[in-house]
Amino acid sequence: MVVRSTIMDTNSFRPEHASELDDATRELTNKRDRLLGESYRLFYRRPVHLVKGLGQYLWDANGDKYLDVYNNVASIGHCHPAVTSAVNEQMQSLNTHTRYLHERILSYSEDILQTMPEAVNKAMYMCTGSEANDLAMRIAHSYSGGTGIIVSQEAYHGTSALTSGASPALGSGQPLSPHTGLIASPDHYRLAGQDAGLWFAQKMQEKIDEMSANGIKFAGFMADSIFSSDGVLPGDPGFLQPAIDVVHKNGGIFIADEVQPGFARTGEAFWGFARHGIVPDVVTTGKPMGNGIPVSGLFAKHDVLASFSDQIPYFNTFGGNPVAMAAAQAVLGVIKDEDLQAHSAIVGQQLLNELKVLQAKYECVGDVRGAGLFIGFELVTDKESKAPNKALALDLIEKLRDRKVLTSVAGPHGNVLKLRPPLAFQAHDIDWLVGALDESLQATL
Amino acid sequence: MVVRSTIMDTNSFRPEHASELDDATRELTNKRDRLLGESYRLFYRRPVHLVKGLGQYLWDANGDKYLDVYNNVASIGHCHPAVTSAVNEQMQSLNTHTRYLHERILSYSEDILQTMPEAVNKAMYMCTGSEANDLAMRIAHSYSGGTGIIVSQEAYHGTSALTSGASPALGSGQPLSPHTGLIASPDHYRLAGQDAGLWFAQKMQEKIDEMSANGIKFAGFMADSIFSSDGVLPGDPGFLQPAIDVVHKNGGIFIADEVQPGFARTGEAFWGFARHGIVPDVVTTGKPMGNGIPVSGLFAKHDVLASFSDQIPYFNTFGGNPVAMAAAQAVLGVIKDEDLQAHSAIVGQQLLNELKVLQAKYECVGDVRGAGLFIGFELVTDKESKAPNKALALDLIEKLRDRKVLTSVAGPHGNVLKLRPPLAFQAHDIDWLVGALDESLQATL
Repeated sequence: MVVRSTIMDTNSFRPEHASELDDATRELTNKRDRLLGESYRLFYRRPVHLVKGLGQYLWDANGDKYLDVYNNVASIGHCHPAVTSAVNEQMQSLNTHTRYLHERILSYSEDILQTMPEAVNKAMYMCTGSEANDLAMRIAHSYSGGTGIIVSQEAYHGTSALTSGASPALGSGQPLSPHTGLIASPDHYRLAGQDAGLWFAQKMQEKIDEMSANGIKFAGFMADSIFSSDGVLPGDPGFLQPAIDVVHKNGGIFIADEVQPGFARTGEAFWGFARHGIVPDVVTTGKPMGNGIPVSGLFAKHDVLASFSDQIPYFNTFGGNPVAMAAAQAVLGVIKDEDLQAHSAIVGQQLLNELKVLQAKYECVGDVRGAGLFIGFELVTDKESKAPNKALALDLIEKLRDRKVLTSVAGPHGNVLKLRPPLAFQAHDIDWLVGALDESLQATL
Repeated sequence: MVVRSTIMDTNSFRPEHASELDDATRELTNKRDRLLGESYRLFYRRPVHLVKGLGQYLWDANGDKYLDVYNNVASIGHCHPAVTSAVNEQMQSLNTHTRYLHERILSYSEDILQTMPEAVNKAMYMCTGSEANDLAMRIAHSYSGGTGIIVSQEAYHGTSALTSGASPALGSGQPLSPHTGLIASPDHYRLAGQDAGLWFAQKMQEKIDEMSANGIKFAGFMADSIFSSDGVLPGDPGFLQPAIDVVHKNGGIFIADEVQPGFARTGEAFWGFARHGIVPDVVTTGKPMGNGIPVSGLFAKHDVLASFSDQIPYFNTFGGNPVAMAAAQAVLGVIKDEDLQAHSAIVGQQLLNELKVLQAKYECVGDVRGAGLFIGFELVTDKESKAPNKALALDLIEKLRDRKVLTSVAGPHGNVLKLRPPLAFQAHDIDWLVGALDESLQATL
């Protein structure tokens, strides 16, 4: 069964909450109503008005300090001075495009390709993860000669027309493309006892066959290897490999969407796909790549990319410009210099251990799982039925906000807290987060 | 007749030119070959290796100074200190997304909407012009209930799957969508004697009827009002109005793609569409908006936008973030403070006058036209036949490069020099440009 939700709207301010706001906040929400398109949604019944960020912390207009356990864009920490100064320096000398020669794009490409499997040896740059995934899907089409793209049942891959049509997480208002095939996500918690790798590989073949029966030739499988929007489902390292073998056997490509798991977050590896020992055909990156400066990338096997580039021109005006590359290079440098991958593994494990104490203590905490500093905390009605408890998850989000801890939910049922702090999150922050969670859970009993 | 070219590749470095390069340059082009996707093309047989920019000037690695008469991204001037310092300041305090409250997006929206017709009263932000046009096309679909988008015969509207399918300028390698209708561009130079407004309005109705006969319901007309990629065709102010009336009469919307003419460039108005007294349904912006920081916008009539937003969620992670808004606000501030619109009108006219002297002097200069600092300089075999002379245009581009003047070509025949300098271009730069052009033309005789 495929469940489609509108996960993105579950945790937002609505006009009927306006009476709960102080005057200054209400003035801002009113201004937003007046000036911005209706697509703009704010987190929380009482939205947070932020004015400052540093490392893993954020401050609101009242001077209150928040622990950020949600934002992976400011991956190496809000306002990291290495990025600020690299951008500032480059902005003062030159910012132009890639039709002129410049070293930045080349030195960055050398560095980033060194983190990839050897076969993934060509780089391209865009400004957003959506742009990278849009291009990746077009490459899948040109390489395979097919149009069918398989994604997981609650996947989110972008805002463009093409990627939105492959993003069931956007809910039923956004029609999926007839060329999109949904595959059940590997819900390890509920698959207990089954071999997730074989199960998922079988689902993959079934979906490919089903699309083929409908006259849709398979082009590829696009997934974020930690299934972030499906509820953060890391699974055991390696379990994805059999499904990827099926993808290749059927002439498709595997697009590793690393917008969420990439850049050292999972701790076990620099890239999410690397946890599984997979060599993707195309890797896409976005959010954490420039610590907030819009920059994204697409890295591919030469022959796969050539199937597109030989035919179709592609030029992205801002993509790979010297300032974007300066930001990206600074991020990569900090990840290495501060050894954030090991840090993510160690602190992530410590956090996971503490969260497991809460799991043991509360009947409603069904599952806690993660890789590095990417953790899913799943709320259920009871451990026996494992029935998703969305209302509790949304209530917790608000209670955590009151305790100055910022996060949000994920999963088709919206019942999983998505704990994905900047990698600047430290062991000494665990008490704040786990304490706030403990108190909040206690308050719901 | 609709001509389709691959204009974007006409003026580029090819491997067979490698022997003309010095060792340092060749090392960079070799590195690009090795590391970057094949889509990356360099301007010029001998590519320019830039290291510094300031105002309207660029410097290469040898210290040679160039006059930039091509780049509208660095619209208010390369490395303008107002943008650098605004970005630096904001980066040091906070850079997060629009699901939290922040003043920047609101104060910028107030300022930018004040430059628009009153009916265009809602703002949204993305990172690239492609993202803005992709969304604009989806809005046209939802508002009209149709799928047919009309664009000019050599239009370029973006790199996403949807916008590429509506960008004939990408050439025959990129198939157009079956829902794209091409309309001949208003080539005023060759329409001499005809009323361009009535002619274009009639073409519009014919194309709408033709698409309708093919079962494609009309959704809208998307155009850059100065027809940049079609060869820079400003026409008389107001000539577009009858065609837009036809668009509305047939239930479609007009999307004004202001990525090129916007932000004071045409001199006569802040926006290209405003030259024609048109109220667009959707306005998209990009390139010059943040002077190189990736930021784009979509501005729309409330009811037109609501037809989309009521159904479909849209969230752009980096779009409208505080740093992007800081850059955009600085650009807007400088345009006002330095009165760049009047400057563009005055200096643009002075430049146009000087170029007309060359037109009178050379048989091969068929037409010179422009609005503000956006000028097309059209090369022909002779004034009588007006036959496009692409070879001459490409030769001139290279000769200008040798004289340290950077520009490129446009138009379906690639025979129009596109003169679109940063608005920092000054009257005292005219001699350099016109002198280099004169010498280059002389050298071809």
